[in-house]
Amino acid sequence: MTYTAQEWQLSRRPEGRPEPADFRLVERELPAPDEGEALVRNSFLSVDPYMRVLMGTAQPGVPVYPLNWPMTGGAVGVVVASRSPGLSPGDLVLSDLGWRTAAVAPARRFTRLERVPGMPDSAFLGALGMTGLSAYVGLARIAQLEPGERVFISGAAGAVGSLAGQMARLLGAKAVIGSAGSEEKVAYLTTELGFSAAFNYKAGDVHAQLAQAAPEGIEVYFDNVGGDHLEAAIDALNLDGRAALCGAISGYHLSEPPPGPRNMIELVKKRLTLRGFEVGDHMDLHPRFARQMGSWLAEGQITFRETVEHGIKGAVDAFLGLLDGRNTGKAVVQL
Amino acid sequence: MTYTAQEWQLSRRPEGRPEPADFRLVERELPAPDEGEALVRNSFLSVDPYMRVLMGTAQPGVPVYPLNWPMTGGAVGVVVASRSPGLSPGDLVLSDLGWRTAAVAPARRFTRLERVPGMPDSAFLGALGMTGLSAYVGLARIAQLEPGERVFISGAAGAVGSLAGQMARLLGAKAVIGSAGSEEKVAYLTTELGFSAAFNYKAGDVHAQLAQAAPEGIEVYFDNVGGDHLEAAIDALNLDGRAALCGAISGYHLSEPPPGPRNMIELVKKRLTLRGFEVGDHMDLHPRFARQMGSWLAEGQITFRETVEHGIKGAVDAFLGLLDGRNTGKAVVQL
Repeated sequence: MTYTAQEWQLSRRPEGRPEPADFRLVERELPAPDEGEALVRNSFLSVDPYMRVLMGTAQPGVPVYPLNWPMTGGAVGVVVASRSPGLSPGDLVLSDLGWRTAAVAPARRFTRLERVPGMPDSAFLGALGMTGLSAYVGLARIAQLEPGERVFISGAAGAVGSLAGQMARLLGAKAVIGSAGSEEKVAYLTTELGFSAAFNYKAGDVHAQLAQAAPEGIEVYFDNVGGDHLEAAIDALNLDGRAALCGAISGYHLSEPPPGPRNMIELVKKRLTLRGFEVGDHMDLHPRFARQMGSWLAEGQITFRETVEHGIKGAVDAFLGLLDGRNTGKAVVQL
Repeated sequence: MTYTAQEWQLSRRPEGRPEPADFRLVERELPAPDEGEALVRNSFLSVDPYMRVLMGTAQPGVPVYPLNWPMTGGAVGVVVASRSPGLSPGDLVLSDLGWRTAAVAPARRFTRLERVPGMPDSAFLGALGMTGLSAYVGLARIAQLEPGERVFISGAAGAVGSLAGQMARLLGAKAVIGSAGSEEKVAYLTTELGFSAAFNYKAGDVHAQLAQAAPEGIEVYFDNVGGDHLEAAIDALNLDGRAALCGAISGYHLSEPPPGPRNMIELVKKRLTLRGFEVGDHMDLHPRFARQMGSWLAEGQITFRETVEHGIKGAVDAFLGLLDGRNTGKAVVQL
């Protein structure tokens, strides 16, 4: 038996904003699974900002996508055939073998999932997956949010930001301020997600809008954007403030990097901590997160949106839309 | 009995680099000490980079020097008269009542010091004082230096930097790289202080010189300078690297702040932590530091230099010389 799969490859490293021509959709016959392997048909693929980094040039200790090789990323799929005792046809599994319609791989590359009543399978790529864990790690471990603190979240209508804002409130923040790139997203933050205040960063100066939304400053900044947001947040942070740097979309697709924050001296004056993180380094928090998130979702305390692109052909578009801020909530590709 | 003291006051807030005209030397008659007070004649005054921040505009939670009021700072002095049981004439004491020849204050403002054989009294403002503690806190607590790591120290011939470099080696660093502002200082670092490598940041591009001095990168950066040094260090830091931001002289006397690091995205890619600190928040480490530093000094493991200005009239010059990088090691004023 053979199985025909389609897979996206990076055909050249993007300069600045990636273009469709940087990618190639390749058709390939997959072999039947060997002893210990399984064949999985993907049903949802994840597209995430960090992938832009993996498209860039290699640096010591920072792996990138090889050229002309199937890209990787989160995926939820269903086992079609298995020669491993741990997996049976029909099983729902999570893997990092995304950007393709199907994959044959050793069984250890797949994690069996239990379906959650009322949740779409794609939630394992979002609220219940690495996206939700990113929000949790950033708030709980990196920024060490304490009850009663004020939190600012940039890119707050995005996948991670929208979960981080709701979590911050549930973890006891007394104020949660968000920024987003349209009036519609701003309304979504305050009316549906329970943010205390929000502003449209395209409608005016970030610095002035943040100062107005948080007149007494903030203790925690969750950064999804970088650039002028980071500079404004450094000014708004109070003594002993912490910033968790989860991503920096504003810089990902610029070949000329954005100007850096001119107020770094505030780190000394106000004893601030800026810390970048990669969720994969914090998998030890996953069990605690999964329990907590499972109960928040079951109680209806957290809501989420998805931007769904349909069909493998649309994966690059979904990714570019993410970089351009066209998505609200988690961006996924449904196959 | 009255006692005539001279004291420096800030007469206006400096724009950019402070000028002598921003300060005023005032003569004042001190009252005799009241019950519980002591009169102390200062013998050494400390001038430190952080004082530039205190000359600036007030921000919430960040106290500054009031105008037309005696400035404060570290000082070592001798008790002249006391109406407190804890202090006797002739006692050597430490206080924050610097920038003046003498002071009358409640006894709790003065800490009695034990003279250390072979050490000048000024050492309590430098190696044995807040300067040494700053180096220790930055390495041990803020950057969490581990044995076997590589450390870069900017402004390494300065008061804090020269101690931090020697301490890093004693704490087990496998390489200690320093930058300084003249060939003479660079030679001092490698020949007298035991730095593994050093470069003159005025002789070429910091980024290129650091890359050459640390071809395999660094794990820890101790920042005394800010600006282009910080950007270069962010590029040189390896995965999970930490930067302790102790001061940023390059930005202190600019009214237009220096450009910020354009590579903040590296914080996410390499999971870096940047943390500013103020030594006064970490006095709990003082006992551990004092024991450790005392034995290093007694064993001759740590050496230090001082740049000494003589006379109260020279205090402002000593401070401006510090901002201009004219000092090597700790800058003090001897009265």
